[in-house]
Amino acid sequence: MQPNVAAAKAALAHIEQDENPATIRAKSRDFFWYSPVLKEAMDHLEADFVVNPKSEAEVIEVLRVCYAHDVPVTTRGAGTGNYGQAMPMRGGCVMHLRHMAAVKEVHPGRVICEPGILLKDLDAYCKEHSGQEIRMFSSTWATATIGGFIAGGSGGVGSVHWGSLRDLGNIIRLRVVTMEAEPRVLEFRGEELARVSHAYGTNGIITELEMPLAPAYDWVEIFVAMKDFMAATRFTDALANQDGILLKLASVYEAPAPYDYFTRVKPHIEADDTLIGLMVAPHSMDGFLTFLGRHPDARMIYRSDANDWPRTPGPVFEYGWNHTTLRALKVDPSITYLQVRYGFPEHLALIEKMRDALSPEVLQHLEAIRMEGKIAFAGLSLVKFTTKERLDEIVRMHEEAGALIFNPHRYTLEEGGRQSADQRQLDFKREADPKGLLNPGKMVSWDTPDFDYSEMYRYPAMTPKPEAAE
Amino acid sequence: MQPNVAAAKAALAHIEQDENPATIRAKSRDFFWYSPVLKEAMDHLEADFVVNPKSEAEVIEVLRVCYAHDVPVTTRGAGTGNYGQAMPMRGGCVMHLRHMAAVKEVHPGRVICEPGILLKDLDAYCKEHSGQEIRMFSSTWATATIGGFIAGGSGGVGSVHWGSLRDLGNIIRLRVVTMEAEPRVLEFRGEELARVSHAYGTNGIITELEMPLAPAYDWVEIFVAMKDFMAATRFTDALANQDGILLKLASVYEAPAPYDYFTRVKPHIEADDTLIGLMVAPHSMDGFLTFLGRHPDARMIYRSDANDWPRTPGPVFEYGWNHTTLRALKVDPSITYLQVRYGFPEHLALIEKMRDALSPEVLQHLEAIRMEGKIAFAGLSLVKFTTKERLDEIVRMHEEAGALIFNPHRYTLEEGGRQSADQRQLDFKREADPKGLLNPGKMVSWDTPDFDYSEMYRYPAMTPKPEAAE
Repeated sequence: MQPNVAAAKAALAHIEQDENPATIRAKSRDFFWYSPVLKEAMDHLEADFVVNPKSEAEVIEVLRVCYAHDVPVTTRGAGTGNYGQAMPMRGGCVMHLRHMAAVKEVHPGRVICEPGILLKDLDAYCKEHSGQEIRMFSSTWATATIGGFIAGGSGGVGSVHWGSLRDLGNIIRLRVVTMEAEPRVLEFRGEELARVSHAYGTNGIITELEMPLAPAYDWVEIFVAMKDFMAATRFTDALANQDGILLKLASVYEAPAPYDYFTRVKPHIEADDTLIGLMVAPHSMDGFLTFLGRHPDARMIYRSDANDWPRTPGPVFEYGWNHTTLRALKVDPSITYLQVRYGFPEHLALIEKMRDALSPEVLQHLEAIRMEGKIAFAGLSLVKFTTKERLDEIVRMHEEAGALIFNPHRYTLEEGGRQSADQRQLDFKREADPKGLLNPGKMVSWDTPDFDYSEMYRYPAMTPKPEAAE
Repeated sequence: MQPNVAAAKAALAHIEQDENPATIRAKSRDFFWYSPVLKEAMDHLEADFVVNPKSEAEVIEVLRVCYAHDVPVTTRGAGTGNYGQAMPMRGGCVMHLRHMAAVKEVHPGRVICEPGILLKDLDAYCKEHSGQEIRMFSSTWATATIGGFIAGGSGGVGSVHWGSLRDLGNIIRLRVVTMEAEPRVLEFRGEELARVSHAYGTNGIITELEMPLAPAYDWVEIFVAMKDFMAATRFTDALANQDGILLKLASVYEAPAPYDYFTRVKPHIEADDTLIGLMVAPHSMDGFLTFLGRHPDARMIYRSDANDWPRTPGPVFEYGWNHTTLRALKVDPSITYLQVRYGFPEHLALIEKMRDALSPEVLQHLEAIRMEGKIAFAGLSLVKFTTKERLDEIVRMHEEAGALIFNPHRYTLEEGGRQSADQRQLDFKREADPKGLLNPGKMVSWDTPDFDYSEMYRYPAMTPKPEAAE
């Protein structure tokens, strides 16, 4: 059925909409441009209109009206995702949830809130309320929303202690609205959470979240420099295995990335320095300094609570996770990245192998995280991009070595994940989005069930590029 | 030199002393009688006098006066240790620190306190102050002191998350008084902590502690029953490896120990039920119940926040750690125990092997703990005691299989530990206790440097038994 965009837009006139074409274009885009592959494929995509509901009732109305008029709805928070999660593949309606930013309840160990609140504001609220903060956040903490993080993220700062969002206990409850003739409101807990978390809003819209909290501390942010990359990686692995030293972040950046890309750190290091970024609980600093003292090859060059740097580097976590790539891109636009899983117990050997094979074309950027109880590493490797073919070859080299890739140069859930259908998400999409209007084109198993993943999926119904349309 | 007990006692007349012979005897004894071997060796030991200082100044005075008169000083908190840590081997002065129980400061993540405060009272203070509690405690939480725990313990409830007391970061600072002509007051942090923590008060007396805190939650206490022991052990191991589910305790008790020894649990289980005891953070209960739902062979028979048990079992942690042995002893006085280290990654195979070889003579009691970042198990195996020779043989069987034993049938630091001198503790004793008067007989390397550990150490200067003295 053809969408009747004009009718839907008119029927939603009482809900806040953006009319300025520049605003509409800006609010149609996320951080897909980290990937030259996605940039080429998605740069032309744009919503027909943008709505900004203020309540669950308004979300329900948007979904009801768009369902009636067969208009696709792509939902987003701040649009800081890098997989093109929030790009409207067939135009239609882009729904922003930034106005739904209320904190409803805070209790010891948990918070109930709306999806559109910034991670930063949620943390500020919980800290002020009772000295608490969320267990983990993306490096886009200052600009991203909790709903976008849950729908489009997988982990981040805090994962070195708490594991990933998909781990049991890291999301308590999600309240979700379906896209049907009469949208339903459902509450998901336990096994049901996997239906809609990290589903890019393809099968329901999150209108309320209940998340676990951890104590908020005045984390001491630290940079340590070491000359040997593998020694730095082993240092970080061993530190993260110290059960009595509470960390929130432990990142490793292979030389010369810190010197070349971290402009405020550059005056304090040399080109051959591998850098380690850390967040350490203040009451763990004695333990950390003791650990550090056992490693004479490690130099602490910065600590946020005591330093003589004329210019602050800003939050150390804004050098980690996907901010690393962002900083590199600002200096060298040809840089892109990969997301790699270096699982325990082969993680150190695998990292060394990939580095031996690919450095400096691929520079290692590692984040220590817990996976099934064991410290291992997520790699967000910096890749000097040449061609799509070479990028695919680099991906293949990782996979052949046993390093799982979550390919950030693909816009579907499956290709950015484990290259196979998630039956729970697909089954729930059948229930919750019978017309397939929610964030279309992002779930291969919905559109093309027999896709074999041998090459990049191309959504057939995607809005064609202007030149192709001529 | 002969001790001049009477002179010392008289010189300390202005400090509180116990005069009642029954009190003196009671205050001379710890829980050494868990071990039939120690019971035979130590039952006759008794202090000549007992002092109860109220301040660090009084501690200094006790140590100065006893030094001058060559009187041994054995220091204790509540005397709940099981290794005979606090038994006065040569009589003399027993110094109780229960009057030194002040909390001095509480900050986010840490507390500064005196050694004599009960673990229970310290937790109550910190929870009331700011919703915090200590990271770990012994199962004798209700009766033991923080100073005794640090000087004589190694870990406990909370170690499933935070590891052991010896791990960097689990003690921040200790203030220590030496026993010299003029006692010195020293502050130890970092590497220096290892000199005096878990040293049984053999080389200095702790007068102030700075300890890390964790958030205090209303932990949900749980019993789960399973028919298969190894399935229960794997369940507990997998649960403790769930990074998003916050636990404080995860214990496994092989059948029929729960049925035979846990009288309040008995009506709810059968003789062939292996029992799992858990403490789960309330905001992790959804995650836990999801995990539980994946194990249809696991029955949750009790949760403290919702149950229909006519009679409460009391705190679930009072079934774990060394309370297990205590409960077994009350029913069967022939029971004793071992402390075993089942290290990662062989822990499950090793447990199965020892059980196959020794059950039911030795019943498995396991506590999940983190060791160097990995979940593994401490075994506090219940042993049906027959002879000392058989007990030694059981110890040998464990060691030959690769399961390290911390032998609780020995009263020296070395034999209860890793069977070798701790050079840091010995070196500091040379500085801090030049006359060797602090808790004499507990450090083999001080008294008998060339001891070969082939058999039980017998302190030559120990007060002889009355019959032997006749």
